[in-house]
Amino acid sequence: MSSKPSIPKGTRDFSTEEMQRREYIFDTVRQVFRLYGYQPIETPAMENLSSLLGKYGDEGDKLLFRILNSGDYLSGVNDEELTGRDSSRMSSKICEKGLRYDLTVPFARYVVQHRDEIVFPFKRYQIQPVWRADRPQKGRYREFFQCDVDVIGSDSLLNEYELVKIIDEVFSRLRISVVIKINNRKILSGIAEYLGESSRITDITVAIDKLDKIGTDAVNEELRAKGLSDDSVKKLQPLLALEGSTPEKLSQLERILSESATGLKGIEEMRILFSYISNAGLKGKVELDLTLARGLNYYTGAIIEVKSVDVAIGSICGGGRYDNLTGVFGMDGVSGVGVSFGADRIYDVLNHLGLFKEMVMSSSEVLVINFGSAETAYSLSVVEELRKLSVNTELYPDAAKLKKQMSYADSKKIPWIIIAGDDEIKSNSLTIKNMSLGTQEKVSLGDLRTYAENNFRKSK
Amino acid sequence: MSSKPSIPKGTRDFSTEEMQRREYIFDTVRQVFRLYGYQPIETPAMENLSSLLGKYGDEGDKLLFRILNSGDYLSGVNDEELTGRDSSRMSSKICEKGLRYDLTVPFARYVVQHRDEIVFPFKRYQIQPVWRADRPQKGRYREFFQCDVDVIGSDSLLNEYELVKIIDEVFSRLRISVVIKINNRKILSGIAEYLGESSRITDITVAIDKLDKIGTDAVNEELRAKGLSDDSVKKLQPLLALEGSTPEKLSQLERILSESATGLKGIEEMRILFSYISNAGLKGKVELDLTLARGLNYYTGAIIEVKSVDVAIGSICGGGRYDNLTGVFGMDGVSGVGVSFGADRIYDVLNHLGLFKEMVMSSSEVLVINFGSAETAYSLSVVEELRKLSVNTELYPDAAKLKKQMSYADSKKIPWIIIAGDDEIKSNSLTIKNMSLGTQEKVSLGDLRTYAENNFRKSK
Repeated sequence: MSSKPSIPKGTRDFSTEEMQRREYIFDTVRQVFRLYGYQPIETPAMENLSSLLGKYGDEGDKLLFRILNSGDYLSGVNDEELTGRDSSRMSSKICEKGLRYDLTVPFARYVVQHRDEIVFPFKRYQIQPVWRADRPQKGRYREFFQCDVDVIGSDSLLNEYELVKIIDEVFSRLRISVVIKINNRKILSGIAEYLGESSRITDITVAIDKLDKIGTDAVNEELRAKGLSDDSVKKLQPLLALEGSTPEKLSQLERILSESATGLKGIEEMRILFSYISNAGLKGKVELDLTLARGLNYYTGAIIEVKSVDVAIGSICGGGRYDNLTGVFGMDGVSGVGVSFGADRIYDVLNHLGLFKEMVMSSSEVLVINFGSAETAYSLSVVEELRKLSVNTELYPDAAKLKKQMSYADSKKIPWIIIAGDDEIKSNSLTIKNMSLGTQEKVSLGDLRTYAENNFRKSK
Repeated sequence: MSSKPSIPKGTRDFSTEEMQRREYIFDTVRQVFRLYGYQPIETPAMENLSSLLGKYGDEGDKLLFRILNSGDYLSGVNDEELTGRDSSRMSSKICEKGLRYDLTVPFARYVVQHRDEIVFPFKRYQIQPVWRADRPQKGRYREFFQCDVDVIGSDSLLNEYELVKIIDEVFSRLRISVVIKINNRKILSGIAEYLGESSRITDITVAIDKLDKIGTDAVNEELRAKGLSDDSVKKLQPLLALEGSTPEKLSQLERILSESATGLKGIEEMRILFSYISNAGLKGKVELDLTLARGLNYYTGAIIEVKSVDVAIGSICGGGRYDNLTGVFGMDGVSGVGVSFGADRIYDVLNHLGLFKEMVMSSSEVLVINFGSAETAYSLSVVEELRKLSVNTELYPDAAKLKKQMSYADSKKIPWIIIAGDDEIKSNSLTIKNMSLGTQEKVSLGDLRTYAENNFRKSK
């Protein structure tokens, strides 16, 4: 065969080293989630398309990976439909299942399906891959990993507060400096109401979002182009000019939005949340950001987004409160709030900051050199003893040249080598070599245990 | 909506409790794999169909889940092909990707694709789900989990030996009694050669496999029905009557197969492997089983299969040596050996034996009762202190009735409750309740740390 085999574009293999780095991220988020009382669930890679379609907008529907029905999948399609070549209509006939696109919709489906077994408030986390048929590009994959943490069945703002704490704790443990930006969908609704442009809430937020980049005049121009009246644009100006601390901004907002019950409710929520936060001694920076508008179609309260301070990359974590999530599956009146950590971008940030370099890669701790069949029994007894002491140990499987075996240990960064050849067997001893220091010493077999306990790292 | 949402048949949701039980299995195999010097890799859920097709036989090809191409997937299909309704031909035009069917073929693909970065012998483990469009039934799922451990690039029988040790160690840690059955493909070839029926090796092995169930006469009858000559059947009889210990059986075999170089090589391999095993002090039983014939198309040396002694279920682990695995991807002459642990069946065995009941389910350790906004600051400081001590702690998010909060702790098996109401705040103290004993005591805030260290379990 002339060419190497390959994998689908946008997907990745993970080497041993990459696995360890990813596990470090997963372990960190998992530990913090558990510390805050969240428990794991998992859902299948495939969902019925009926559960997925229509949940992510038209664009999302196009990005779903669909799975061809098994067997004679064409039996339900007539000739006219076949030659009609309406691919999207036909795919609904030949595919019933799709790969999950995120962890939120499967979670909503899970909650509704298992509502009778679940104890509410239900605090769950979920760490699994998701798939999107997006155009692959640097940092964007077709298979990537999300780490979601949500609580469903409680309206309390203490949940929002604890999610902010979780975010702060995770990134502090990972040593990534972050800004946690918070907004509230009710405030955005209030602003649109105040401007008399409730239907244009998305246009307004998208335009405001560009304030830093393009300046006030350009934002106003964009809004006029979107159809906002001169009057509305004029009314918007004090909102673009808010200044001061978060409580000060909220007070200014309160005066401006005094006629909007929804807006005032949002302001009140932010006031409570920021009062918790102000006493929390967070390590990262938290700020009110009125331009934050992610997932407008489904958030109903707080909106949260996290950016790395030192690395220019999209948001590395985000989420918010959604009052109607399970409604699409027939269960109303259950409010939830959650955030999702983007493992792949976090990986890139850690890599960029050089923080992986300091990680001790856990390979085997000891390699026992293989001298051939005459020495095998002796070597196996050494290996056995070390493993009983929980020391990750390898016996090189072949009686290869010493140089080759040493180079294997070197490539795999195995820190200790044990030589148990003819001489050692005769004197009932071992030669133990430290690969990084280049030192070696002779240890009697009876002292191996003590030597191991004083020198070798134990497996966890 | 009248009906609950559902998931595709043959797939499963995993609840918090099931997740913990599965994690216990995964953690156990992972720890043992690492102890023996194996390192993790992962491969994408989707592979190119060109990597998968033809690797699992015609039946396997049918069981692959295929993923519909994105965009206008019909553009490469002409009208004639469409109305020809040849579903299998058409699927190759409209699908380029499929879900992985096992972990072995992706591993072979990985080794060939990354050959220049890999240090050989390459000892890897891989724990991931696989998908098969099999008819779902009790204990058989369309999405299930495999835990594979393989070493590639070494011929040494020490690898086979260490895999047997790994199997023994895993099941001993899981407290499942097992029989490890071992055979050798070269011996099976030798037998077929000796009978002069090399082409009927599969028929012969399948028939011999039924010896225990149907007896010698019925086996002979079946072999004649498959086309074996009377002479061959007669020659087979001493093989069906082998008796004694493994070394004795091997000696008898050696006399019978004295003309077959392949057979003798297989016998020699088994002799060496069993000599290692006889000194290993294994906890489980290991036996030579000449009827073992799994995966004949691809194993070339040892064949291994593990059965539970106490629960009647198919094999819970199996594998063998394959000399040509990477050959299909254009890389010859690299021998590998490995086994795969079936996590789902192991789960069922543990469940059946009641071994999960003794597991301590790790929910949160402490629930702090929520009395409302006046007490929130005090409660939050308690929660904060406990989390700093690595105690998994929840503050109930809403100021619900005490009974409801207690019942939440009870359902979630949270062992400790902290009450910090008006009285406690005034006296700068806490009431700490042990849920299983029903006892409670008052602890001053200053003593919380000491109390926690003496009583509460820490998060790992």
